[in-house]
Amino acid sequence: MDVVSYRPEPHELAWTFGGVPAVRTVPPGTVLELWTEDAFAGKVRSSDDLVSEVIEFPFVNPLTGPFYVEGAEVGDTLAVHFVSIEPSRDWAASSTIPLFGALTSTHVTATLQDPLPELVWMYDVDRVGRTVTFRAGESTDEISMPLDPMHGTVGVAPANLEARSSLVPDAHGGNMDTPEMRAGVTCFLNVNVEGALFGLGDGHCRQGEGETCGVAVEAAMDTTLILDLIKGTPTPWPRLESDDYLMSAGSARPLEDAFRIAQHDLVTWIGAECGLSPMDAYQLVTQATESPIANVCDPNYTVVAKIRKRYLPQHDAYAGAHARLREMAAAYQAARL
Amino acid sequence: MDVVSYRPEPHELAWTFGGVPAVRTVPPGTVLELWTEDAFAGKVRSSDDLVSEVIEFPFVNPLTGPFYVEGAEVGDTLAVHFVSIEPSRDWAASSTIPLFGALTSTHVTATLQDPLPELVWMYDVDRVGRTVTFRAGESTDEISMPLDPMHGTVGVAPANLEARSSLVPDAHGGNMDTPEMRAGVTCFLNVNVEGALFGLGDGHCRQGEGETCGVAVEAAMDTTLILDLIKGTPTPWPRLESDDYLMSAGSARPLEDAFRIAQHDLVTWIGAECGLSPMDAYQLVTQATESPIANVCDPNYTVVAKIRKRYLPQHDAYAGAHARLREMAAAYQAARL
Amino acid sequence: MDVVSYRPEPHELAWTFGGVPAVRTVPPGTVLELWTEDAFAGKVRSSDDLVSEVIEFPFVNPLTGPFYVEGAEVGDTLAVHFVSIEPSRDWAASSTIPLFGALTSTHVTATLQDPLPELVWMYDVDRVGRTVTFRAGESTDEISMPLDPMHGTVGVAPANLEARSSLVPDAHGGNMDTPEMRAGVTCFLNVNVEGALFGLGDGHCRQGEGETCGVAVEAAMDTTLILDLIKGTPTPWPRLESDDYLMSAGSARPLEDAFRIAQHDLVTWIGAECGLSPMDAYQLVTQATESPIANVCDPNYTVVAKIRKRYLPQHDAYAGAHARLREMAAAYQAARL
Amino acid sequence: MDVVSYRPEPHELAWTFGGVPAVRTVPPGTVLELWTEDAFAGKVRSSDDLVSEVIEFPFVNPLTGPFYVEGAEVGDTLAVHFVSIEPSRDWAASSTIPLFGALTSTHVTATLQDPLPELVWMYDVDRVGRTVTFRAGESTDEISMPLDPMHGTVGVAPANLEARSSLVPDAHGGNMDTPEMRAGVTCFLNVNVEGALFGLGDGHCRQGEGETCGVAVEAAMDTTLILDLIKGTPTPWPRLESDDYLMSAGSARPLEDAFRIAQHDLVTWIGAECGLSPMDAYQLVTQATESPIANVCDPNYTVVAKIRKRYLPQHDAYAGAHARLREMAAAYQAARL
Repeated sequence: MDVVSYRPEPHELAWTFGGVPAVRTVPPGTVLELWTEDAFAGKVRSSDDLVSEVIEFPFVNPLTGPFYVEGAEVGDTLAVHFVSIEPSRDWAASSTIPLFGALTSTHVTATLQDPLPELVWMYDVDRVGRTVTFRAGESTDEISMPLDPMHGTVGVAPANLEARSSLVPDAHGGNMDTPEMRAGVTCFLNVNVEGALFGLGDGHCRQGEGETCGVAVEAAMDTTLILDLIKGTPTPWPRLESDDYLMSAGSARPLEDAFRIAQHDLVTWIGAECGLSPMDAYQLVTQATESPIANVCDPNYTVVAKIRKRYLPQHDAYAGAHARLREMAAAYQAARL
Repeated sequence: MDVVSYRPEPHELAWTFGGVPAVRTVPPGTVLELWTEDAFAGKVRSSDDLVSEVIEFPFVNPLTGPFYVEGAEVGDTLAVHFVSIEPSRDWAASSTIPLFGALTSTHVTATLQDPLPELVWMYDVDRVGRTVTFRAGESTDEISMPLDPMHGTVGVAPANLEARSSLVPDAHGGNMDTPEMRAGVTCFLNVNVEGALFGLGDGHCRQGEGETCGVAVEAAMDTTLILDLIKGTPTPWPRLESDDYLMSAGSARPLEDAFRIAQHDLVTWIGAECGLSPMDAYQLVTQATESPIANVCDPNYTVVAKIRKRYLPQHDAYAGAHARLREMAAAYQAARL
Repeated sequence: MDVVSYRPEPHELAWTFGGVPAVRTVPPGTVLELWTEDAFAGKVRSSDDLVSEVIEFPFVNPLTGPFYVEGAEVGDTLAVHFVSIEPSRDWAASSTIPLFGALTSTHVTATLQDPLPELVWMYDVDRVGRTVTFRAGESTDEISMPLDPMHGTVGVAPANLEARSSLVPDAHGGNMDTPEMRAGVTCFLNVNVEGALFGLGDGHCRQGEGETCGVAVEAAMDTTLILDLIKGTPTPWPRLESDDYLMSAGSARPLEDAFRIAQHDLVTWIGAECGLSPMDAYQLVTQATESPIANVCDPNYTVVAKIRKRYLPQHDAYAGAHARLREMAAAYQAARL
Repeated sequence: MDVVSYRPEPHELAWTFGGVPAVRTVPPGTVLELWTEDAFAGKVRSSDDLVSEVIEFPFVNPLTGPFYVEGAEVGDTLAVHFVSIEPSRDWAASSTIPLFGALTSTHVTATLQDPLPELVWMYDVDRVGRTVTFRAGESTDEISMPLDPMHGTVGVAPANLEARSSLVPDAHGGNMDTPEMRAGVTCFLNVNVEGALFGLGDGHCRQGEGETCGVAVEAAMDTTLILDLIKGTPTPWPRLESDDYLMSAGSARPLEDAFRIAQHDLVTWIGAECGLSPMDAYQLVTQATESPIANVCDPNYTVVAKIRKRYLPQHDAYAGAHARLREMAAAYQAARL
């Protein structure tokens, strides 16, 4: 088992998918022990650290990577199995950012109103008790909620010769901001350029569905994952597999198009995988799907379509890659003890 | 305890919210034992019964009601507590309908392509085993899924002197098509006209989130509910309360506006209810909300915002109406045994 | 030539399409000499008359009508030819209205920001010089622009047993708010109920495309029109014909669906009318169409698709109804001199 | 007067804004005599040349450029004055492309329907008679329409370290596809990177508003333009000035956001330029604006907001750059005779 540990220096952080050289080259099957900085580049450390003052755009939402995967070619799929995602600090931060978020006008949903105030909330992270604690800014309320670590931004270099900001989710993955991207899950991403050029960041201690104000409980993360390669199989939009679910993630505006992409991909995927006709798959998905919204704040909005594997006829997605990577992860973790 | 049983004759069915006279007048606190016909008006009974052939528009999605609630005035809220929702037949039906659904062009998302084929799927309903069984039309697959009965259409007469088709969801409720509308839940609806004029229909044995093809597992239902009145409190958009969650349901196009409505309503509701500032409530909801899509097929799309009550500071929504109605329901059910 | 003059008393105004009885019954071919009150019901007469204070909702945007057209049945088309539209006062008014308009959040594009201020602008109307004069509220600027009178709201009773607020545009016409609805134009509307039940209102001295702040230069109007009937021909969405153009008006959200409806209707209309295949009509429209936005503020947004008649092969829309009504109008006007 | 003539070799064409080195460096005030290949890279020359067969993606919509403008820095504005745009061949081509266009489902407005057929239309271009002639594919109709040459794609390198496909319109300009981009017009673009890195392509002999099927009358162009620099003045979204109009171009999805961007920019621009308060500018634009749709087919949709300069108080946009460049163009053209 190849294991590579990597903690980027500040100058090694990437701010786009595509357009930057690889920080490491790894063979398929490599276990990566990584550290990711938080979306604020670590610069929001108290409620006085306003994003508009401490961050110089576009240097927000840094990525660890990209990693060049040996043998990855256009037409292949990169499998990313999350072994563990753990906050690396005992605090995390959230914020409002002027003209960013779902319940404000923005630079594109442009209005003549004044922006909402810019505020910061600092969270306590209890890694043993597995909670994060919200403290109200204008009252004395404190609320503990379960820790549920995830990565908002997971992707590869995009197609069409493009380089995209780390803030953007699209067919290459990127800033999808779905709470489904947690440990134990395998994410499948299309390879658009040689080497795939995988990167990730934007750890969240937890996040509501939709990331309403635009900013989750942002945290640096110690993350272990396995990169693997499925040769000769493309993946039109990001897909995820957990022990219980198959999922597709669509990103677009308006939000109904993100829904359509995810549902269309799930229908065609399970149709092909399970031997159902397109119309039968459409009917089955209609009655069985769960449709949690991921984000309604980023340059594209993201919706997930997920279906319980036990509602599906016989199937074996990506030739059992998820189960195989689950076993590799268990072996890795056993060896670590 | 006032108990009224009512089973409409075919000629008593309503097809709009507003614009039709009440079928019964009841005092607040009445238990209603009702029967609702399925969305196909009971006319789709085999896979040969194509909707476009057996149904004459606009006579689709019939409502039981409306019920005039004594004392209900503009500025009040109607509370609808679902005691039980049970399929009244051992079969149910679904269908595709030309130019209707999320993965097809429609009369408004107009394209020059041919429509998808019109097909019917009949489901077995096992009321003891609590399953519904899908049978593929073009292969031999059969899949059993849990029975999870709900009403797609629950509403009152709209504001602004309007009468709206039973197919439309909006601020008056209507065809929201959310699986959250199940037994044990209380739905709060604004009173827009004297007497509120409550009606419901569109029972589903189960439904995926989004109702992708536009049609759930449609069934006639035996439904018991309690109608109650909250005087002097308006409700801007439909809200639901279960034992675990507070929920708001927004309906609009594009889908992000349905999301915004639901989130905005939840933020302002819990802010006022729990004594949080608007910005603190915005932040809390951002990290805590679940955002299941309800429908992406109706004239307005619907999204639900839901938050666990245990993540909230001290609160007592609608002066404890849900808990009180829960107790009434228990007393009613105990008396029935 | 049948000529009917009608000036509604305040209590005769209608506030919905559908749901109200006819004020007059007229045979096809009738010339109607009408007066329409302005959208503020005449209550905004100075910059101190704030809409939120002087108007009690839903009593806004009053309609003159409805008129029952003898012989009109479902499946027919009502032709409305505008002979003249003239401001009936020497002043007009505009306003901002909280949470209404394109450059503000609204009740459905809901945000947590404060609304924009509510302001009124009074305009001078020079019916001889054919100008309206804008006076800035916060500087001394005065700007005269051409008078270009039109009706924002023109429609019939909707289908599906509905009654719709006069603020809503949809397939029944209604509050489309397009500057194309000026004198010399014929508007074709589908007959959805017996008698068609035609009404109109919302005169504008002029209006920019999109009606950005939600309110045009609102004025009472003296309007003469001819109502005619095209038997046996339905009209899926409102169409207009001028001496130079064929036009379709689509109303929906999001705005791209309004565009799609209008373009789809224009493609299928000219395809059928001119003997072009659907794909050839699609190509021709792609290169020839003009696509002015009508409104981006109403419950549905409206877009017009218009094509110069001289770019079309031989055609004769609605059997030459526009030319025939143009001649009737000329005869009527000659008789008036 | 600096005059640079440049005709790219096929290997010199660019396919993105950003991410490619400059082909030339020029001082501000340079006249560029350029040739641009058509959007099909010159490969569609008969109705048998199907786009999906003759073009290898992403090598579509080639750009001439980029040009590095000396002294251009972030915070400046690039002024691009179009002296002349002339078709360089006597034919042009259009096409449908599967899953691309406004009246079809697409990869993001995803449906389960079959795509529309892929067809090509060849146009005759009469540069003397100033017409283009459409020939129907499935009938014998021929229709001549006025030649109205324009560039669909005009832009600079984007901000945020991105490289964007030449098919994308956004704040950096790009594939806006507005017929307003014709000779005699000055386009103002924000400088996002040193040197601005200006490029253009996608000549159209004419185009309907909306570019409905996704493809205009595509042609190679001989285009002369002047590049100039406005120091110290940023431009949030692309603006255009003609002799009669000020215009803003917004690009986003859904289409109402493109409208909002353009209107918001026009309101704030003329407010600042003419000394009107934001609310007065909002009111004036509401009554005076024209709002032609540019495209409803590209990755972002584009809408233009335009206002007649004679409806504006005293103003002098970009310190009279348009008038100055108009004079330079006249001097250049006089010298050429």
